[in-house]
Amino acid sequence: MSNSVTIPPDTLTRLTQDLFVRAGMSGADAATLAEALIWANLRGVDSHGISRVPWYADMIRKGVLNPKPQFSVRKETAATVSIDADRASGPVAMRFASGHAVRKAREAGAGFAVVARTTHTAALGFYARDIARQGCAALIAAASLPMMPYHGSGTASVSTSPFCIAVPRGHGEPLVLDIATSVISFGKLMLMKKAGKALEPGWAIDAAGAPTTDSAAAVMPLPLGGPKGAGLSLMIECLTSLLADNPILAKVLDGADTVHRQNALILAIDIAAFVELDVFCANVDHLVTAIKGTPLGVGFNEILMPGERGDREMDKRRATGIPVPAAAFAEFRRVATEFGVAVPESF
Amino acid sequence: MSNSVTIPPDTLTRLTQDLFVRAGMSGADAATLAEALIWANLRGVDSHGISRVPWYADMIRKGVLNPKPQFSVRKETAATVSIDADRASGPVAMRFASGHAVRKAREAGAGFAVVARTTHTAALGFYARDIARQGCAALIAAASLPMMPYHGSGTASVSTSPFCIAVPRGHGEPLVLDIATSVISFGKLMLMKKAGKALEPGWAIDAAGAPTTDSAAAVMPLPLGGPKGAGLSLMIECLTSLLADNPILAKVLDGADTVHRQNALILAIDIAAFVELDVFCANVDHLVTAIKGTPLGVGFNEILMPGERGDREMDKRRATGIPVPAAAFAEFRRVATEFGVAVPESF
Repeated sequence: MSNSVTIPPDTLTRLTQDLFVRAGMSGADAATLAEALIWANLRGVDSHGISRVPWYADMIRKGVLNPKPQFSVRKETAATVSIDADRASGPVAMRFASGHAVRKAREAGAGFAVVARTTHTAALGFYARDIARQGCAALIAAASLPMMPYHGSGTASVSTSPFCIAVPRGHGEPLVLDIATSVISFGKLMLMKKAGKALEPGWAIDAAGAPTTDSAAAVMPLPLGGPKGAGLSLMIECLTSLLADNPILAKVLDGADTVHRQNALILAIDIAAFVELDVFCANVDHLVTAIKGTPLGVGFNEILMPGERGDREMDKRRATGIPVPAAAFAEFRRVATEFGVAVPESF
Repeated sequence: MSNSVTIPPDTLTRLTQDLFVRAGMSGADAATLAEALIWANLRGVDSHGISRVPWYADMIRKGVLNPKPQFSVRKETAATVSIDADRASGPVAMRFASGHAVRKAREAGAGFAVVARTTHTAALGFYARDIARQGCAALIAAASLPMMPYHGSGTASVSTSPFCIAVPRGHGEPLVLDIATSVISFGKLMLMKKAGKALEPGWAIDAAGAPTTDSAAAVMPLPLGGPKGAGLSLMIECLTSLLADNPILAKVLDGADTVHRQNALILAIDIAAFVELDVFCANVDHLVTAIKGTPLGVGFNEILMPGERGDREMDKRRATGIPVPAAAFAEFRRVATEFGVAVPESF
């Protein structure tokens, strides 16, 4: 028996959508959520793909994720919008907010949206790419529960807050930088633990708050560049959760509930407010060519642009299907079955 | 003879201002520049303080830095402004642009300024702090000449672009995160070379593009977190230089001139467009208290907020004066003398 099942992307998208419709979401919202998850799988970012489905379904059952959210605009100015997402599925809330940010950018040159009370925002690059395709530059960040120590702290005190910047270009998909503020992702740390691999110094701490290279002892990743990643994550909490008047970190550290929730920000800049879009895109292409044309560093075979590895994997997986590890597939299938969605054993 | 001269901050500010007035700047512009430089010295960031004066003076002599710039607004929307800085001194251009960004934030909720054709922007925290003091959140970034390898490249292909985020708080100075996209600053690398100290792995490469821990062989720092810092620096070039229609990296990599120039962006968010300023500031204070209250990690004595070390040093140096290394003081004195400004030998 194979250790993974390879599933055509369209099939996986349809199954995921069906599942979330049965879980109470509208067809359109379930389609958005499925598209966001399968987009991550296509790009090889399986940590943000359908492996999340059981968790999302569980959050719906527990009332943590609201499948029928009522979005409200709390406050609006010419260039800003403050949105209450009513515990919506992250992708649904983020797409709603992206629409507002881009509309504001068209009207005012720049749009800054803050999204309060969303849930797991999945892969931020998904929304940033969409915004870039509309002729805007995008900057997106999200705040969540404490998952790594602030620099100097020995316990989880800040989130591994992801942030993302995207710009359109003339040829090919937008440049999309989508990174966490931790030195390695939580998912990668878990994989290293499972594989029993040694960690590099500076990657993680143990339960006592001491640096460790022993993956068995490691409990959480460290911030990217120590005070830099920690400070960035802290500032993201300020720019998202505190602007949203929905603090996460302080509440959890004070001993309040640890129910999952997120807040996010989306900045869209209309490129045409500064320079003709064609000129900008040509300059991005030129920059990419210039950087790729520099001599390689010792130990490198090529120079990759932000998002390029994922673009390549997407081309491949679109053609050959998405490999899902057997255990993850069994879990997906179990949850789908519970919601009355029939999932074949093979494809 | 002492290895450093300790100078009262006001005296150093006055001397620096006098020097730049003699070099052709207006009294107001020279005061802004002096204030920005001495602010960095007060905070212990001596790499961005008066040690830059000889370089700035040289740029004025060579026509690279324009002491009497004519700022122009190229394009303006409700929330954006595109400024041509006419090769102004960085602090003069950045303060001008900050004013526009804050005005836009007041009018539209958010203001996004792009500054084309400025020169060395000094310490970005200086402007971010000012914006935060006006009840806004600030995000600032700057682009410059290639100074570190893009991830995978063996030569200088991106800048060590700094970026900065600031928010106001209820008690004390704003929280100001001011970091470079390199793993260590160029200045720190030069200090390690001078001291003959071994570098940590991942800090620098040698002239052949190979990683090195030998500070004598090191020629430039590596990006923070490899592809993360490199990608961030690349995106900053897009969001500043390409929005400003003034590409830096591609031109230099194509073999054009390497004359110093910078571009920058300033985002100001009016906090009151989202939440009452008092509530926001109280929540920042609460967050700081909560993070500082977490158990210490092994090997740490305290938990510092972004900018806190500099705030402390500023309190100290305001009282006791700014220590300037003898060599840097001699250089400052030489340049001041050339411009006809008398600098005492001791204070």
